[in-house]
Amino acid sequence: MINFEFRNPTKIIFGTETEQQVGKEAAAYGKKVLLHYGGGSIKQTGLYDRVTASLEAAGLEVIELSGVKPNPRLSLVREGIELCKLHSIDLILAVGGGSVIDSAKAIGVGAVYSGDVWDFFTGKQEPKGSLPVAVILTIPAAGSESSPGSVITQEEGGYKRAFNSSHSYPVFSILNPELAVTLPAYQIACGTTDILAHMIERYFTNVTHVDLTDHLLEGAMRTVIRQAPRLLEHPDDYDTWAEVMWTGTIAHNNLLDTGRIGDWASHDIEHELSGKFDIAHGAGLAIIIPAWMKYVYTHDIERFVRFAVMVMDVELDINDPIQTVTEGIYRLESHFRRMGVPVRLSEAGIDESSFEEMADKGSASGTKSVGNFVKLGRDDMLKIFALAR
Amino acid sequence: MINFEFRNPTKIIFGTETEQQVGKEAAAYGKKVLLHYGGGSIKQTGLYDRVTASLEAAGLEVIELSGVKPNPRLSLVREGIELCKLHSIDLILAVGGGSVIDSAKAIGVGAVYSGDVWDFFTGKQEPKGSLPVAVILTIPAAGSESSPGSVITQEEGGYKRAFNSSHSYPVFSILNPELAVTLPAYQIACGTTDILAHMIERYFTNVTHVDLTDHLLEGAMRTVIRQAPRLLEHPDDYDTWAEVMWTGTIAHNNLLDTGRIGDWASHDIEHELSGKFDIAHGAGLAIIIPAWMKYVYTHDIERFVRFAVMVMDVELDINDPIQTVTEGIYRLESHFRRMGVPVRLSEAGIDESSFEEMADKGSASGTKSVGNFVKLGRDDMLKIFALAR
Repeated sequence: MINFEFRNPTKIIFGTETEQQVGKEAAAYGKKVLLHYGGGSIKQTGLYDRVTASLEAAGLEVIELSGVKPNPRLSLVREGIELCKLHSIDLILAVGGGSVIDSAKAIGVGAVYSGDVWDFFTGKQEPKGSLPVAVILTIPAAGSESSPGSVITQEEGGYKRAFNSSHSYPVFSILNPELAVTLPAYQIACGTTDILAHMIERYFTNVTHVDLTDHLLEGAMRTVIRQAPRLLEHPDDYDTWAEVMWTGTIAHNNLLDTGRIGDWASHDIEHELSGKFDIAHGAGLAIIIPAWMKYVYTHDIERFVRFAVMVMDVELDINDPIQTVTEGIYRLESHFRRMGVPVRLSEAGIDESSFEEMADKGSASGTKSVGNFVKLGRDDMLKIFALAR
Repeated sequence: MINFEFRNPTKIIFGTETEQQVGKEAAAYGKKVLLHYGGGSIKQTGLYDRVTASLEAAGLEVIELSGVKPNPRLSLVREGIELCKLHSIDLILAVGGGSVIDSAKAIGVGAVYSGDVWDFFTGKQEPKGSLPVAVILTIPAAGSESSPGSVITQEEGGYKRAFNSSHSYPVFSILNPELAVTLPAYQIACGTTDILAHMIERYFTNVTHVDLTDHLLEGAMRTVIRQAPRLLEHPDDYDTWAEVMWTGTIAHNNLLDTGRIGDWASHDIEHELSGKFDIAHGAGLAIIIPAWMKYVYTHDIERFVRFAVMVMDVELDINDPIQTVTEGIYRLESHFRRMGVPVRLSEAGIDESSFEEMADKGSASGTKSVGNFVKLGRDDMLKIFALAR
């Protein structure tokens, strides 16, 4: 186990009707709230009305910025920063899923910075502070509701980049599983894939003696693999959503990688897919992860055997561990197929003509590598794309 | 799953040599530190010198209060409160195990309260604030390094009572597994029993649809059951201590009971044992828990079967679930025996003559019950003592 620091300050308020506490909680941070959300869905469901009523009842002034799209855009972030400065906003309230929350986090750090917010995504600067960001979560997936990270797309270049900052943990996150029951099947599939992917990235590590976090990851991965298909059959089941929503937060709040180093190559490679093609992040992950596994499993067969046995319920073939590994990857693919996400680039309408460009961007023209479990460069990316065809 | 709030603000600083960061971390809270510890062991190991050197290098003034004993005493807490008031202490630094930390937490809430600190333990008052408490952990066991609770013994009456307050989470806790390598075998046994007990208490719940926390608890319980015996054979193995130390924190930082209601009858009943006889808390738990299990398992055979199969590795006997349950309890007892803790009252030198008195105290003369999974009154306690003879 390696040395680590862990502190997650986000206050989680979990359960039925908890969005009605938002006014009381938000009032602790000031008087002016930037209400940040996506499109009309929160108006259709009545959530918008309940939230604004609660904020107004607590005496808060609400300024709105809607229009966040999946793979959230830098241009809207810039707009939000201007609004925060213009209105002296005290708290940014993100009502939505990971895209809205990530957009809010970017606005938060940009609003207290004199330079260009994109500096944080290129690594030119680190955030020194942020306006407080709070969350009402409607889509369990990204884990952004209790994480320090934000992923934003600069639309002109198709660049999708991330930053992490201890200043960007939401101050509170309201998690009401009831808010997720209206999600369509494809979003359920992409969201639960993202949750599982966050744990797969953390699971594959070269750090030894990580028995506790191995066990915790295995338990949480089994939970989402078991519960996710139930959601497709019973999308209005509160308890199943509760399991998935809380697993989505735990999967990405950094507890499960204490003392270990995760991989994250699949996420980095996927960002090239969704940056260029605007496909859902979860769909991109379901394509890349199995191909990544097929490409790297020889690096540590024992760990892939453990994954197959402890997570995918494969019976260990003691005479043929590679067969055990292969069966584990096959079952993971089958899980994704059952959920309804693509597991091949061709299924997402992506052909070989863009492989070179994506590998170039992902490797900064061959100058940088991705991944920690196995370091991967431009040629490795091309081979993974080939395995994912 | 039931509604819950979860926020654990303690900053964990984990790994080798981390105690050398204490001065820098402590300096954020002020100038005057009350250094609170037990006996001479931290002087023998050199920890005392390293800690005071780090504090002084950071420009901090150190006032000392040593003498904390297992089952920490109210009288020393009162002494600490006086010292804090006299010297206008800014931060209480507990260097030790659960007893030292619990004593520091009690001093912390008492130092900012005009009444008698025992009011918080009788439930007469709730803490409205606390001096900040920080920790350097030397004994993985109680989980107090990242919990809101404190257990103190009022020595005159032999009363052992607890309080929980969100003000009592340590502000930071330094966890260096190297500091545990000098622990004697019996403390290893009692400490790892306490860790396991914290998870057993949380595991037995009547709340349904708690799949995620069930899985997390099972994984963490398996970890401590697997690692604890290794410590007896290799008490100087860093990585084994790292697993146990981090499991001890996770076991009791309230994450593992999010959305569920733990039982805690065994802890409450055990407090009567260690309050009266001054035996180690872990030893008392190893006696009470198996007897409690034998007494209550018919309440939910399915859950005890799951415990036997998922935690104690019992093969399910589909035709005889009670045999599966019995085997699970037997294996838990065997684990405790292997670790070297007593599993019967007689082994701890406690005979029937004190059963009535302990049951009276534990039930407030028959007026209150303990436990949530199964509510237990005075007569139930007597029967559990009888099963534990």
